[in-house]
Amino acid sequence: MSALAAPDPAVRTAAAERLAGLATPAGALGRLGELGVWLAATQGAVPPPLLDNVRLVIFAGDHGVAQHGVSAYPPAITPAMVRTFVMGKAGVSALAAAHGVQVRVLDIGVDDDLEGVPAHVQAHKVRRGSGAIHVEDALSADEAARAFEAGRAVAREEIAAGAQLLLSGDMGIGNTTPAAAMVAAALGLPAVEVTGRGTGVDDAALTHKQVVVQQALDRAGDRVEDPLDALAALSSADLVATVGYLVQAAESGVPVLLDGLMSVACALYAERIAPGAAAWFAAGHRSTEPAQALALEKLGLEPVLDLGLRLGEGSGAVAAVPVLRSAVALLRDVALLADLMPPE
Amino acid sequence: MSALAAPDPAVRTAAAERLAGLATPAGALGRLGELGVWLAATQGAVPPPLLDNVRLVIFAGDHGVAQHGVSAYPPAITPAMVRTFVMGKAGVSALAAAHGVQVRVLDIGVDDDLEGVPAHVQAHKVRRGSGAIHVEDALSADEAARAFEAGRAVAREEIAAGAQLLLSGDMGIGNTTPAAAMVAAALGLPAVEVTGRGTGVDDAALTHKQVVVQQALDRAGDRVEDPLDALAALSSADLVATVGYLVQAAESGVPVLLDGLMSVACALYAERIAPGAAAWFAAGHRSTEPAQALALEKLGLEPVLDLGLRLGEGSGAVAAVPVLRSAVALLRDVALLADLMPPE
Repeated sequence: MSALAAPDPAVRTAAAERLAGLATPAGALGRLGELGVWLAATQGAVPPPLLDNVRLVIFAGDHGVAQHGVSAYPPAITPAMVRTFVMGKAGVSALAAAHGVQVRVLDIGVDDDLEGVPAHVQAHKVRRGSGAIHVEDALSADEAARAFEAGRAVAREEIAAGAQLLLSGDMGIGNTTPAAAMVAAALGLPAVEVTGRGTGVDDAALTHKQVVVQQALDRAGDRVEDPLDALAALSSADLVATVGYLVQAAESGVPVLLDGLMSVACALYAERIAPGAAAWFAAGHRSTEPAQALALEKLGLEPVLDLGLRLGEGSGAVAAVPVLRSAVALLRDVALLADLMPPE
Repeated sequence: MSALAAPDPAVRTAAAERLAGLATPAGALGRLGELGVWLAATQGAVPPPLLDNVRLVIFAGDHGVAQHGVSAYPPAITPAMVRTFVMGKAGVSALAAAHGVQVRVLDIGVDDDLEGVPAHVQAHKVRRGSGAIHVEDALSADEAARAFEAGRAVAREEIAAGAQLLLSGDMGIGNTTPAAAMVAAALGLPAVEVTGRGTGVDDAALTHKQVVVQQALDRAGDRVEDPLDALAALSSADLVATVGYLVQAAESGVPVLLDGLMSVACALYAERIAPGAAAWFAAGHRSTEPAQALALEKLGLEPVLDLGLRLGEGSGAVAAVPVLRSAVALLRDVALLADLMPPE
């Protein structure tokens, strides 16, 4: 793809001028000032509008590696959590209700038929589960293309519903393993530098997980040089859909607040596929996973929050939404120095 | 004073049990889990109630040292900012409106008559300005006692208005100088280790500010061993009122979310005067001032946010309120594992 347009440079300049004219000491608003300027540019207005329509999509899917000792939890948790999202009783559901964020959960690749769950949850399903990446490709080329298009379609639907800001979350036992492999492949790093404990494996399982990630990287070989080939080899249906969602959001000029490792690993691929996409992304929460810090550094992003969350589901992004609203409020509602002290 | 009662230990235990029973991986809620347990204990209920009644008091006052080259701004800004708070057009006003926090500004020691400002703003005024601490005491013993009682009375008023959570802010050009002296005196440190750039002085002014703080410490001598004597010598009317406010909140069993350096320096004295008070405090925002980090370490507190704010006014505390609401929402609304997967 050709490089994407950046958030409106003229609006960014006007927002920076408004920030400098507020009746506050220079630089005193810190990151809230920077975020306000970025939001203004992405919304095309100074001051930026209130963020009333913030929408999270949780992409759910299973990972073949989860059957191979990389997670502290069994794969059966994935469909159970999808049901919990549908009931509105998960961690992210509680946060989203508290902060006025719309939540949509989609089964992209859960290894279960999810009987009784509303049909729209499965409207974009690509397959049941994804391949165990240390021994086989996650997806065929055709499946990867369909997952990518599914994510794009979902973003278009959310934007049609009025999204001013999109959030990305992921659910799937074992998901930190493909995400770590994705980051390693994109940055040319060995497994040992990117692999973390996920939801909390012990030392022995961590070592095993590193071996699994390295096997996946060795198996993929030179194919990692093409981002779509790398995704088919090393990721999963839900993660490829997330990449498509991020690319479409950036292409449509709608900003995204990223969550933890999965979200940021996908952002790295969105930027590879559509250079310039990252200018539309902000980082919600610092993960405890080493691969997220490496991916963020590459993308030039600094998380808004660092609360030690390792829940996934988009929860870190949702928790950061009020910080973005703080940034908007300051640009909208603080007096201008020129109004308080008119020139004599 | 005798040691204060801690937040309810039985409720704390019950809240920790509820946290452990949520349908989330162990420890996955990070600091939000810890904050939820603390809030439950301070509110005496599991799960804790929604935080609908959160109240910020901004204590305003001038500092004699501000006439001696320690600040990038002239003292005339202090009354101008009080007027801006009254109009609801300051930085903290915008944040408070966005997050449903009630704001009250009090002139405790502004060096101005604030003509035309509603009378209730001056209802607790102790004096015009406070002494230049490098050459004279900030307050007489009688003024310090009156300021302390004023802060206690204000806390009682806010609690009578239903406060579930109190916030503390400060406004006054030059205020980081007495606050740095307070922290140095409490921790037995030299001026060079505690003095920062405040709203942004240059290198030469920073060196001068260090000299001023050290002169104040040398002048106060052994009197710093008694916290009330130290306050009369080194602080100001607005800062002593803040100490009284914090002591009364803790004594009344109402938690406080602290702001930046001024708020945390006062919390250090609240703990000295009323041991156990700090168990009722949480830290909202990490300041760029070195003295705040030192005081927080002594109090055993870790800030919720680190956004590079150096606005004062209680703004860092207000920005952190939604994080506390996130913590409450998780304990209230996430499913219990036992409900999702009943024992067979």
